[in-house]
Amino acid sequence: MLVVMKAHATEEQVRLVCEKIEKLGYRPHAMPGATRTAIGITGNSGVFEHGTLEEMPGVQEVIKVSKPYKLVSRDLKEDNTIIRFTATEATIGGQGLAVVAGPCAIESRDQAFAVAGRVVRAGAQFFRGGAYKPRTSPYSFQGLGEEALQIMAEIRQRYGIKIITEAIDNESLDLVEEYADMIQIGARNMQNFSLLKRAGRSKKPVLLKRGMSATLEEFLMAAEYILSEGNYNVALCERGVRTFADHTRNTLDLSVVPAVQRLSHLPILVDPSHGTGKRNKVTPLSRAAVAVGADGLMVEVHNKPDEAMSDGPQSLFPDQFDELMGQVRQIAAVVGRTVPGIGVKNSFAMI
Amino acid sequence: MLVVMKAHATEEQVRLVCEKIEKLGYRPHAMPGATRTAIGITGNSGVFEHGTLEEMPGVQEVIKVSKPYKLVSRDLKEDNTIIRFTATEATIGGQGLAVVAGPCAIESRDQAFAVAGRVVRAGAQFFRGGAYKPRTSPYSFQGLGEEALQIMAEIRQRYGIKIITEAIDNESLDLVEEYADMIQIGARNMQNFSLLKRAGRSKKPVLLKRGMSATLEEFLMAAEYILSEGNYNVALCERGVRTFADHTRNTLDLSVVPAVQRLSHLPILVDPSHGTGKRNKVTPLSRAAVAVGADGLMVEVHNKPDEAMSDGPQSLFPDQFDELMGQVRQIAAVVGRTVPGIGVKNSFAMI
Amino acid sequence: MLVVMKAHATEEQVRLVCEKIEKLGYRPHAMPGATRTAIGITGNSGVFEHGTLEEMPGVQEVIKVSKPYKLVSRDLKEDNTIIRFTATEATIGGQGLAVVAGPCAIESRDQAFAVAGRVVRAGAQFFRGGAYKPRTSPYSFQGLGEEALQIMAEIRQRYGIKIITEAIDNESLDLVEEYADMIQIGARNMQNFSLLKRAGRSKKPVLLKRGMSATLEEFLMAAEYILSEGNYNVALCERGVRTFADHTRNTLDLSVVPAVQRLSHLPILVDPSHGTGKRNKVTPLSRAAVAVGADGLMVEVHNKPDEAMSDGPQSLFPDQFDELMGQVRQIAAVVGRTVPGIGVKNSFAMI
Amino acid sequence: MLVVMKAHATEEQVRLVCEKIEKLGYRPHAMPGATRTAIGITGNSGVFEHGTLEEMPGVQEVIKVSKPYKLVSRDLKEDNTIIRFTATEATIGGQGLAVVAGPCAIESRDQAFAVAGRVVRAGAQFFRGGAYKPRTSPYSFQGLGEEALQIMAEIRQRYGIKIITEAIDNESLDLVEEYADMIQIGARNMQNFSLLKRAGRSKKPVLLKRGMSATLEEFLMAAEYILSEGNYNVALCERGVRTFADHTRNTLDLSVVPAVQRLSHLPILVDPSHGTGKRNKVTPLSRAAVAVGADGLMVEVHNKPDEAMSDGPQSLFPDQFDELMGQVRQIAAVVGRTVPGIGVKNSFAMI
Repeated sequence: MLVVMKAHATEEQVRLVCEKIEKLGYRPHAMPGATRTAIGITGNSGVFEHGTLEEMPGVQEVIKVSKPYKLVSRDLKEDNTIIRFTATEATIGGQGLAVVAGPCAIESRDQAFAVAGRVVRAGAQFFRGGAYKPRTSPYSFQGLGEEALQIMAEIRQRYGIKIITEAIDNESLDLVEEYADMIQIGARNMQNFSLLKRAGRSKKPVLLKRGMSATLEEFLMAAEYILSEGNYNVALCERGVRTFADHTRNTLDLSVVPAVQRLSHLPILVDPSHGTGKRNKVTPLSRAAVAVGADGLMVEVHNKPDEAMSDGPQSLFPDQFDELMGQVRQIAAVVGRTVPGIGVKNSFAMI
Repeated sequence: MLVVMKAHATEEQVRLVCEKIEKLGYRPHAMPGATRTAIGITGNSGVFEHGTLEEMPGVQEVIKVSKPYKLVSRDLKEDNTIIRFTATEATIGGQGLAVVAGPCAIESRDQAFAVAGRVVRAGAQFFRGGAYKPRTSPYSFQGLGEEALQIMAEIRQRYGIKIITEAIDNESLDLVEEYADMIQIGARNMQNFSLLKRAGRSKKPVLLKRGMSATLEEFLMAAEYILSEGNYNVALCERGVRTFADHTRNTLDLSVVPAVQRLSHLPILVDPSHGTGKRNKVTPLSRAAVAVGADGLMVEVHNKPDEAMSDGPQSLFPDQFDELMGQVRQIAAVVGRTVPGIGVKNSFAMI
Repeated sequence: MLVVMKAHATEEQVRLVCEKIEKLGYRPHAMPGATRTAIGITGNSGVFEHGTLEEMPGVQEVIKVSKPYKLVSRDLKEDNTIIRFTATEATIGGQGLAVVAGPCAIESRDQAFAVAGRVVRAGAQFFRGGAYKPRTSPYSFQGLGEEALQIMAEIRQRYGIKIITEAIDNESLDLVEEYADMIQIGARNMQNFSLLKRAGRSKKPVLLKRGMSATLEEFLMAAEYILSEGNYNVALCERGVRTFADHTRNTLDLSVVPAVQRLSHLPILVDPSHGTGKRNKVTPLSRAAVAVGADGLMVEVHNKPDEAMSDGPQSLFPDQFDELMGQVRQIAAVVGRTVPGIGVKNSFAMI
Repeated sequence: MLVVMKAHATEEQVRLVCEKIEKLGYRPHAMPGATRTAIGITGNSGVFEHGTLEEMPGVQEVIKVSKPYKLVSRDLKEDNTIIRFTATEATIGGQGLAVVAGPCAIESRDQAFAVAGRVVRAGAQFFRGGAYKPRTSPYSFQGLGEEALQIMAEIRQRYGIKIITEAIDNESLDLVEEYADMIQIGARNMQNFSLLKRAGRSKKPVLLKRGMSATLEEFLMAAEYILSEGNYNVALCERGVRTFADHTRNTLDLSVVPAVQRLSHLPILVDPSHGTGKRNKVTPLSRAAVAVGADGLMVEVHNKPDEAMSDGPQSLFPDQFDELMGQVRQIAAVVGRTVPGIGVKNSFAMI
C-alpha cells in the first residue's frame, strides 16, 4: 500500500498519517519527493483497511502496489535516490559519477596507502578494500579483519576519500558500520536475508551487489529487505552473472542498468573487475558501463597485481586506472555526468 | 597434506601424530577408514615441513593433496561417510536409502502432525519442516521460529522420526542445533562462509544444499568449510540449478550425484521438489534420483498443498507420497538399496 | 484449429472434411486416435471461418488450439505416437524401450561391424553411426559420407538392426533418406528450419535432438515444423543443455521427459553420452533416464574408444554397454517397460 | 601452419609458395598485412613436412598455430580486417563505425522505403531487412523471399545504401548473393556448417551472428569455416546469449567485443535489438556497444513498430533512431571513431 500525500501537505500531516499507520499495526516509510511525499506501508498481513487513511488531512489517495517490491519502486518515489555523505560533495545517484576503487583485499598498511594515494589522485571519491573476504576455500586468505578497517579509517583521514567495505555476518557488520562510510553486501550474501535485515537497521548506506544468478526481481527484493527495515540509502551494483560463457569470469549484464533505473529509484553501479575477471577487459567495460548510464563504477586497483593475495588477474595497475579515468571522464561528459574527484589538491598538500 | 598411517598403526600412534601436527601450528583431522587411518592437515600457510612426520612410528607416508578440497576428498578417505543417528537404524550414506519428507514450512501443530503421521507411515525416516524460511520477499511468511522447532521436537518424540531443519544465521543455528537432529544449510547460504564455519563447530550433522549456480568444486569447497572446523558429518543435497530452461523452476542436475561420489566420500541426496518446482514432476524425478545412485531423497509433502503458505505447487499430497515411496522402493532394490523405515508399527501403537 | 470427428465417423467423412479444408486453402492433418480421429488444420493465415466445417457429417466440434504448437500437442492426439518400422517388432514410443547404440562416427567397415555385433548382442534394436559429422572445427574429421551409409546398410542386412543417422543439409538428407531407417536432425540444426521442412516431406521417421539452449516450447515448435509438412513420425531426444556447470560437457535435463510427455504425444529418448560427455556418467544417467520414463536411450559405443576419431571420452566400451543393458533392463521392468532386442539368436546364426 | 614471408618478399615469391602448398595437397590462404604477408595453410591431415617451404625464397619462417582457429587468428594477420564495398566509403572494420539499420522483415515496398528513407537520413550506411525469416513457429510469417530482395535492390539504387540480408539455406543464399551486398548468417545457423561452407565459397562478404549459446571459441570456429573456404571478408555480430536472466530477451555480452578483438583480426558488430528485445533498452546498449569498442551496430527500425509482423517490441521508431544516432556519434568521437553516413544530400537530390 502506498499513501500519496497532496503536493502541499504539511510535515505534520505526514507525521499524523505515519502515526495512524503504526497504530494499525503496520510500518510507514515516508519518502519525500520533489513535488510530493509518498508513504509506503509494509507489514506481513495481506488485508488492509485503508478507508480511514484516505479521509485524513493532506492525503490525496491510497493505492495498491501490485509489484512484489514496494519501497524500492518508482511507484513510491519518482525521483532518483541520491546518497549523500558527510564532508564530501561526492554522492551516489546524483549528477556526478561515483567512482569506487581500491584493492580486492587490504593486505598491509603499505599496500593500502600505496593504492589509495593513486586512486585519489586519479579521481576516485570512494576507496574499496576487503577486510573480511568471502573466499571459496577455507584455506585462502580471509582478510585482516579489524586491522584492515583501521587502516582504511586512516586512509579516509589522510585523503578525505570515503570508505566502502564488505560485511559478511552480523559481527563484521557491527565493525564495518563503525569504521566505514558504506557497508557492502557481497554477491554471495545477496540472499542472506538475516544480514540484509541487519544492514537495514544500520544508519550507514549500503552497497548491495547482485547475486551471481539473481534475476532482476530477486535483486530488487533483496534491496527491499534493507529498505523495509528503515534504511533507504541503498545502492545496487551489477558485477556479472554466471552463464555458460567462458571467455570472462562472469558475464557482465549491462542491460540491468537501464532495467533497474526504469523500475526503481535506487542508484546502480557497475563492477567491471568481477564482471569480467580479466584486467584487459576492465577499461572497455568501464566505458560501456558509463555509456549505458550507470551511476558509478567499482574497480579493483592494486599497486602490485601480480603479488595480490586475491583477484590479482582482474586488478588494474595504477597507471591503467589513470587511463581508465581519463576515458571514463570523456564518456561521462557525453551522457551528462561529471566525475567530481575529492579536492585532490588539498590531499596532496597533506602528503 | 595428508598423513597415511600404516594398516596396523595403533590409536596411540595416531594420537601422537595429531599432537605433533598441532604443535607445528596446524590442525589434524583423523579419518579412520576400513583398512587404515588417514590424517588430513589443514591450516592457512602454504609451506609445510613434513620430514618430521614421516619419521614418526606408525606413519606410512605423507602426501600432498593437490585438489583444492582436502577433507571432503576420497584421497583422504576412501570409504563412504555414513552419518548415524542415535536410537534409529536410519543412516545417511549407508546401504539404506535416506528419505526426508515433510512440509516446506511448519505452519501449525495440526498441519505438522498431520503430515508427519503420513510420511512416517509411508516410510520416511527423516522429517523436514521449515522453522526459519529464507523468502525472496520480506513480506512473505518467514516461519514460526522456535515454536516450529518445539513442534518438530514433539513429532520426533511421538514418531521416532529424526528432524532436519534449516538454520539461516548464527542465532537460528543455536536453536536448530538444540532441537533438531540435523542442521540444514540452504541453497542461498551455501557460500555464507560465516554460517558454514559455525555449522562446522556444531556436534550435529549438517545437510548442505547446493547453491543455485554453484559449480561442483564450489559445492565441495562449501562442505570443506564445515569439515575444516571439525564436523565431518556432512551430507550434500542437489536441488536444481538455475538455467535458461523455463519448464521447471530449476534444472535438476542428476549428473552431479555420480560426480560427487567419484570425488568425495560424503553422501548426496536429491531434492526433486525444489529441483522441479512442479508436483507432477516430483515422482518421476525421484525415481530417476534413486536410479542414478543418490543416497536419499528430500521431498516436500503437505496435507493441504493448495493452502500451503509456501511452495504449495511443488508439495505432494500424502497419497502421492505413498505412491512415490512404492515406486522408489522398487528402483532402490535394483540399485542395491533398501528403504528401511523407522519401525512404523511401534509408532502406530503409540498413537 | 482442430476438427474433432465423432467417435463413429467414417473414413469417408474424414476424407471429405480434409478435402474441404484443402479447398479453403489450408492443410489438413488427420490423426486417428484410439476412440476418435482429430484433424489438425494448419496454414499461415490467422482468420479462419469454421462454420462450414462444423455442419459437415461426422464432425463433433471445431476448436481453437491456443498453444503455439498444434500438431505435436496432446490436444490434437491423446494417444502416444508409436513409430513402427518394417520387419521388426522394435518401435519407438511403444511399450518396449527403444535402445539406439553405436559409434559417434563410422570410421571404417571393420570398426562399424565390430561395434554393431556387440550392440546387437547386448539388445539394441537401433544402430547409430555418423556419416556426416557437424564438427566445431573445419579441420576435424567430417565423416565418411555415403560410404558410411553403405556400411550401415550392410549392417542392417546382416543383423536386422535398424539404422539411424544424421543429415546435416538437404543433400545429405536425400542420401540418409535412401539408406537409413530414421533420419536424425542434430542439436545444432534444431532450428535449421529449412532442413526441418525437408525432413517433414520425407517418408522416413525423424529423430529430432534438442538444441543446446532450446526451451521446451522451442523444442516442440521445431517438431511442429516437421509435422506441419506431413511427417508425423517424429521422436524427440534430450541430449543435455548448456549451463554454467562444468563437471559434465552438458547438463542432462531429465525433467524435460515428463514435461514433453505431458504436452505432446511424441516419444522422447535420452542421450546420456552427449548429455554428460563422460564415459563414467553414461550408465548411471541411463538408469535415471529409464526411471524418469524416457521412451528410449541413445548411447555411444566404440570398440576402441581411446582411438575414436570423435567423442572417444564419452563412448562406452562394449563390455560397459553390456553392463548398462543389464541394469537398464531391471529399471525398465520397474516402470513397466520391456527391452525387446531384435531376435538376436537368428542374427548370430547369420554370422 | 603459417608461412611468414619476409617484409620485402615479392608477389611472385608469395605465389610460388602458394603453388607449392597446393602441390603438397593443402590449401594456401595468403593474407597481406601492413608489413608482411602471411600464408595460412589448411587441410585435414595432421602431419605436415614444412622443411621444403622454409627453404623457398622470400620465406622468413614456418610456424605452427596451436589455437584451433587459424585463419581468423591475429597470429596469422596482425592488422584488422577492413571489409570494403564498391561505390561507397562505408567499410566494416575501418575507422568509421558501421551502422546497419532497417526492419526485422521486409513486409512491403512501402514499409521498406519508408524505413530506408529514414535510416539513410539518420546516417546508416547499411540497410537490413529480412527476406527469409527463421521463425520459431512454422505458422508465423516466413518472409517475402525474392520479392523482398528485389525491393532491397531498389532501395540500394535509390539511396546508395548497402544491403545486408539473411540466407537460411543454400537456395536462399544463391539469391541473397545475387541481390545483396553482404550475406547474413543468423544465430540459429551459426553451426549450420553446410551453410557456412557455402558462404565461404561466395564472393560477397558475410555477417556471422553469434549463436545463442556459443562460446567465444565456437564463434571463432564458425567464422573459420567461412574463411577456410576462401572468403576472408567476414564480420562477426554479438546479439545476446541465452541465460537465466529474464528482464531482457537475451543477455547482451559486450565483453565478447574486446575478447574477439584480442584474438582475431575480424571486425565485430553489436545488435542491441535482439540483444535486449526491448525498445527502451536499445539506445543505452547502443551507446555501450560503441563505448566498448564495437566496429558497428545493427539496429532494428520500423516505421510502425506496433504493426510489425515480427520483432515489433524491439524495433525503434524512426525518431528514436535519429536520437540514437545523435548519441552514438558523440560516443564514437570519444573512442576515436567517425560515423560517415553515405552522402545523404545526393540521395535526397534523387528523391
